[in-house]
Amino acid sequence: MSRINAQYRLTARPVGLPAVSDFQYVEEPAPQPGEGEFLVQVEHVSIDPAMRSWMNEVRSYVPPVALGEVMRAAGIGRVVESRHPGHPVGAVVSGTFGVQRYAVTDGLDVGTVDLSLGEAPLHLGVLGFSGLTAYFGLLDVGRPRPGETVVVSAAAGSVGALVGQIAKIRGCRVIGIAGGPGKCRHLVEELGFDGAVDYKSGSVRAQVRDLAPQGVDVFFDNVGGDVLDDVLTRLARGARVVISGAVSQYNSAQGVKGPSNYMQLLVSRASMTGFVIFDYAARYGEARAQLADWLRSGQLEERTHVVTGGVERFPEALLGLFAGENTGKTVLAL
Amino acid sequence: MSRINAQYRLTARPVGLPAVSDFQYVEEPAPQPGEGEFLVQVEHVSIDPAMRSWMNEVRSYVPPVALGEVMRAAGIGRVVESRHPGHPVGAVVSGTFGVQRYAVTDGLDVGTVDLSLGEAPLHLGVLGFSGLTAYFGLLDVGRPRPGETVVVSAAAGSVGALVGQIAKIRGCRVIGIAGGPGKCRHLVEELGFDGAVDYKSGSVRAQVRDLAPQGVDVFFDNVGGDVLDDVLTRLARGARVVISGAVSQYNSAQGVKGPSNYMQLLVSRASMTGFVIFDYAARYGEARAQLADWLRSGQLEERTHVVTGGVERFPEALLGLFAGENTGKTVLAL
Repeated sequence: MSRINAQYRLTARPVGLPAVSDFQYVEEPAPQPGEGEFLVQVEHVSIDPAMRSWMNEVRSYVPPVALGEVMRAAGIGRVVESRHPGHPVGAVVSGTFGVQRYAVTDGLDVGTVDLSLGEAPLHLGVLGFSGLTAYFGLLDVGRPRPGETVVVSAAAGSVGALVGQIAKIRGCRVIGIAGGPGKCRHLVEELGFDGAVDYKSGSVRAQVRDLAPQGVDVFFDNVGGDVLDDVLTRLARGARVVISGAVSQYNSAQGVKGPSNYMQLLVSRASMTGFVIFDYAARYGEARAQLADWLRSGQLEERTHVVTGGVERFPEALLGLFAGENTGKTVLAL
Repeated sequence: MSRINAQYRLTARPVGLPAVSDFQYVEEPAPQPGEGEFLVQVEHVSIDPAMRSWMNEVRSYVPPVALGEVMRAAGIGRVVESRHPGHPVGAVVSGTFGVQRYAVTDGLDVGTVDLSLGEAPLHLGVLGFSGLTAYFGLLDVGRPRPGETVVVSAAAGSVGALVGQIAKIRGCRVIGIAGGPGKCRHLVEELGFDGAVDYKSGSVRAQVRDLAPQGVDVFFDNVGGDVLDDVLTRLARGARVVISGAVSQYNSAQGVKGPSNYMQLLVSRASMTGFVIFDYAARYGEARAQLADWLRSGQLEERTHVVTGGVERFPEALLGLFAGENTGKTVLAL
């Protein structure tokens, strides 16, 4: 049986926004699993802002994708050949399979997907790293108390939308920062946020001041740059700033803009803390069960933006993310 | 009895380094205390980097000094007239008396100085805000554990030298960052630091890497700017960055340079926390007793740089601080 693999390899380090020319599209025969390995036919690829940061040659929580290597991506697929006792043919699995149709793996860091909790794409979003990032980042790092004001940036994105909804479940006042009136309406009318700040329309600082006159107790930041600087000026005493991402900076060709208002951490007796979701691996089960529960009860909802058309459409799907075109989780269906 | 007051008032907001022309020197009759007030003859004025930040019109932990107002300063003096039952004539007191020879006060936030703990200038340094800032900032915010590596910037300054010595007492490995070989030698040879980084000679990042190959567990930062950015790249997993000051940025006419490497907080699962010493007022006594104890036992020492010549020499004393001329605590003797 001859299977043809299709993949995108990273061939150049992007300067600014990634271009199609930074990648090479390759078709070749799918690899064969060796002893103790299995072959996964990838069905859904997770498209994440963090992918852009993996393309830069900098010290980060994971090494950069090497030039010539298949672009790193989380995905979900089905085992189609197996020489591994724990992963029989037919099993649905999740792992870092890359932007490709077929991946061989030895099962390290590969999980079995429980489809009874939700359909496959949800396991890349609310039941996958987006949900886990929102859950642990907000609850463990941000530690919001009922009645506190939580602000989240990139609030219409996969992680941000979940952060806001979980904060609501925990009895907080929630304000989302997003781009454009459509997304802002979505946050308030469909996701139940208490307010929304449109960063494309007027001063973020002034809008946050109006919506959170008592100050911001927890800021869950996915974007960095000017938005972070603006929110820093509105922190309440003892605020917690959770650094989850910096999507506004990943494409910067001028280097990262640091938060020039960081001395507000002193003024507000506040802290800014980074985290990496992998550190919570031992508690993924607990979080996933809770997230699935909230999903079933309707307290949590996720909008999934599925890009169809296969591996070929990867660059388009990625650029759509940075253009801020979509709400919710972006998934490439193969 | 006619007393002549001498004072420096802030008359312009400095751009960059303060200039003598930003202040007005005034001589006039000393004020008379009203009912419930007393008159302090100031004998020692504390000269602190934070004074520069109080001159800027920005939101901070204290309001800026208003134009035309006496320049704010902590000081120690003797009560020379009193209509206040708690502060009789002859008592030695500390408070925010300003850069002037005589101050009238109602006693709010004025403390009685216990000269048995140490001579007057020490109550502006190790037994005053410098010591309290080092004590609570390091122990409560930085929370170093024995064996951990502590790095402190402006390490030859009043706060920094105490931070390093307290960290040594607590069993940490201590590296100080200071400017010039003389200060660096002082840190290692006289204060017992394990290593010193000369920021004026070569890469801070490389020197910190060589001296702390396992990474930095606690960074107590007094300076901000490039030094902060460099140390951020060398944090150990779970590091704590304590934001105490940003002396490199106070004089910046271009606005503050934020730490562009702040995403290393995520990579290192680290936190950056600000604090304001006033919040610890209820525990000053505990800290002061411990600091006095360490001082008596010789585990802690303070170098005091006394500028003599009276109020007139205030601008000179302040500028000396920013020129990095001295080690230890700078005090203006009136």
